[in-house]
Amino acid sequence: MIEVNKAIEIIEANSTKMPTKHIEVSKALGYVLAEKVISPIDMPPFRQSAMDGYAFAHSIRHQYDIVGTSQAGDHSNIKLNTTEAIRIFTGAFVPDSADTVVMQEHVMANKDSILIAEMPEKFSNVRPKGEQIAKDAVVFEANTLITPAAIGFLASLGITEIEVYKKPKVAILVTGNELMQSGKKLKKGKIFESNSMMLEAALQTIGIEKTKVYRVKDNLKATKKALSSILKKYDIVLVSGGISVGDYDFVKEALLQNDVKELFYKINQKPGKPMFFGSKNETLVFALPGNPASSLTNFYIYVAPAVKNKMGFSEIHKPKVVRKINSEIKNDTGKTLFLKAKYDETNVTVLTGQSSAMLNTFAIANSLLIVPEDVEVYKKGQLVSLLPID
Amino acid sequence: MIEVNKAIEIIEANSTKMPTKHIEVSKALGYVLAEKVISPIDMPPFRQSAMDGYAFAHSIRHQYDIVGTSQAGDHSNIKLNTTEAIRIFTGAFVPDSADTVVMQEHVMANKDSILIAEMPEKFSNVRPKGEQIAKDAVVFEANTLITPAAIGFLASLGITEIEVYKKPKVAILVTGNELMQSGKKLKKGKIFESNSMMLEAALQTIGIEKTKVYRVKDNLKATKKALSSILKKYDIVLVSGGISVGDYDFVKEALLQNDVKELFYKINQKPGKPMFFGSKNETLVFALPGNPASSLTNFYIYVAPAVKNKMGFSEIHKPKVVRKINSEIKNDTGKTLFLKAKYDETNVTVLTGQSSAMLNTFAIANSLLIVPEDVEVYKKGQLVSLLPID
Repeated sequence: MIEVNKAIEIIEANSTKMPTKHIEVSKALGYVLAEKVISPIDMPPFRQSAMDGYAFAHSIRHQYDIVGTSQAGDHSNIKLNTTEAIRIFTGAFVPDSADTVVMQEHVMANKDSILIAEMPEKFSNVRPKGEQIAKDAVVFEANTLITPAAIGFLASLGITEIEVYKKPKVAILVTGNELMQSGKKLKKGKIFESNSMMLEAALQTIGIEKTKVYRVKDNLKATKKALSSILKKYDIVLVSGGISVGDYDFVKEALLQNDVKELFYKINQKPGKPMFFGSKNETLVFALPGNPASSLTNFYIYVAPAVKNKMGFSEIHKPKVVRKINSEIKNDTGKTLFLKAKYDETNVTVLTGQSSAMLNTFAIANSLLIVPEDVEVYKKGQLVSLLPID
Repeated sequence: MIEVNKAIEIIEANSTKMPTKHIEVSKALGYVLAEKVISPIDMPPFRQSAMDGYAFAHSIRHQYDIVGTSQAGDHSNIKLNTTEAIRIFTGAFVPDSADTVVMQEHVMANKDSILIAEMPEKFSNVRPKGEQIAKDAVVFEANTLITPAAIGFLASLGITEIEVYKKPKVAILVTGNELMQSGKKLKKGKIFESNSMMLEAALQTIGIEKTKVYRVKDNLKATKKALSSILKKYDIVLVSGGISVGDYDFVKEALLQNDVKELFYKINQKPGKPMFFGSKNETLVFALPGNPASSLTNFYIYVAPAVKNKMGFSEIHKPKVVRKINSEIKNDTGKTLFLKAKYDETNVTVLTGQSSAMLNTFAIANSLLIVPEDVEVYKKGQLVSLLPID
């Protein structure tokens, strides 16, 4: 049995990044750059007006004749003399002969001329060519996550394809003779299998759209055979159930017989203690507890960061949220507790119903309160750390 | 011009919820329940062992003969007498004649009998039928967001379909003669159009997978005609650009001529001041500034909550993150500032490059620091509120 932080460390140390691929920028949301991106153009590509107003060559004069117009999209490089100005709009080309734009609110204008009431400083309201980024400069370093803003910036530079880390292929192997698929009438002694659908949805929240689900009876031979073929085809394998100490739990044995290297088994935490983590070649194997809330807790704490690590994320753990706790929490277990909790703008409430079999509490939680193993009590009003969950 | 909080209020007051539809639970991630869900079964459906161990009728005896086994999935209702126990596993059916399970770590066992070393209290380790939820009880109230945990819980109850609010259909109308689509060689005076791809990605992060993009030249007739057909077909219309005060901005006029009711125009904020919000029937119209960073800021502050509101979310605003600020921030504008910022576990840093045209800063930010209009300074080390962004 190992500590939570040690388990997190071991998983990180044993994750390798995925191979890379080319992808269209428009489809790259949630991917991570595998190499740096260089700008093919200056941005802005020309000197641009930052305002609706009038462009002119700065001098001591306050009155100018209007001799033309530059709308966004135009490119007439008119030659202004010292007494001339043009009407200009935000984003429009500033002629080489102008150096300053006065905003329209600061002039008195008629059809033919303007009188500048509030004189701007020279070079005001003109965005220099390449101000945002120069041609051949680095747009983004490798390992940058592609967000909506990153997509916008790449598109504004005319970049249509980028090199990213592939997303891992994930399989879920469900074990358990007691499990029935929903949609049928429940037989005596059986329960509906729900972990696979839950884990598929949890994977979707971190960008893994498609997951293949396999099902196997609780016996060594069937489990071993199923794993043998799954281990060859997937980058991450989640085994659901069959990992506690009971006589009828064959999963660990089936994993070891498939040459999966055990990296740890059991973590000093509640819920979710009986978890196995191992690897075979580049494939990571998480054997998660069958209890739904334990399974999902371990997904958020261990599996999600491992998926992000393979995808090339530089930050694989979500930033913690800090809040005042609404009630005293005791920890006499010597284990790290992960408690379903709900936080608002100022406080956090630990929810009732923390049993490892109970998912209903999880469904209304927005975070896990982490009580480290060496903390015996959180007093009411104390600031505590939360892991936000989606 | 109105205040930020007033703008948020007006948008919320004018949003109506979408119609509802039936959906498979397995596809319901990110949807919101339109009606409450009732449990069709008791969960657990039978008295269940919470441990691997032995089931027996509690008494003063410490020694019991092992007369059978109950694995998960079994349903043999064996009649135990006072000297008998059965081997039992986590999740398995507890016979009516047993009332207590002792965990295997607390007994000495041989093939035929056990000696209980540490006697549990009566009823220990037996999960009562219906402990998690009783048949006909409310599983989730209306307006519950379907999370991975909710999917797991619904599936565990054998529920395969639920009633949810539809997601809104969203169109983006791009205006601007200066805009070219990326993939071509940039012409003089032009820039690559990037806002539509950025807004599509931003919509994806809140569950709107498909968005239709329309493009129109900067003139009243074309804009009016395009809007006329778009307004009939979509629940939310985002117009990108053409909303500032320049002579060549036709969008507001085109909206008014299409009987879009103006609910506000211009917000006392920086960036993102020139925004129009209106409605026609149930359709909401946001005319966003053309500057990319302004556009994305207003998406996060105004559009995303409106989308969530239509989808039935009970909490349409993300909880704020509170952090210590790394540097002094002055606000002499009298406006609310939204500053691109990056926070870690303890601090927040305001990034350089806050211009409304610059997206590169946004791409490395993970939050917007909100400086309200009536705050003139945030001192270094002060706690400040952030809106996290994905």
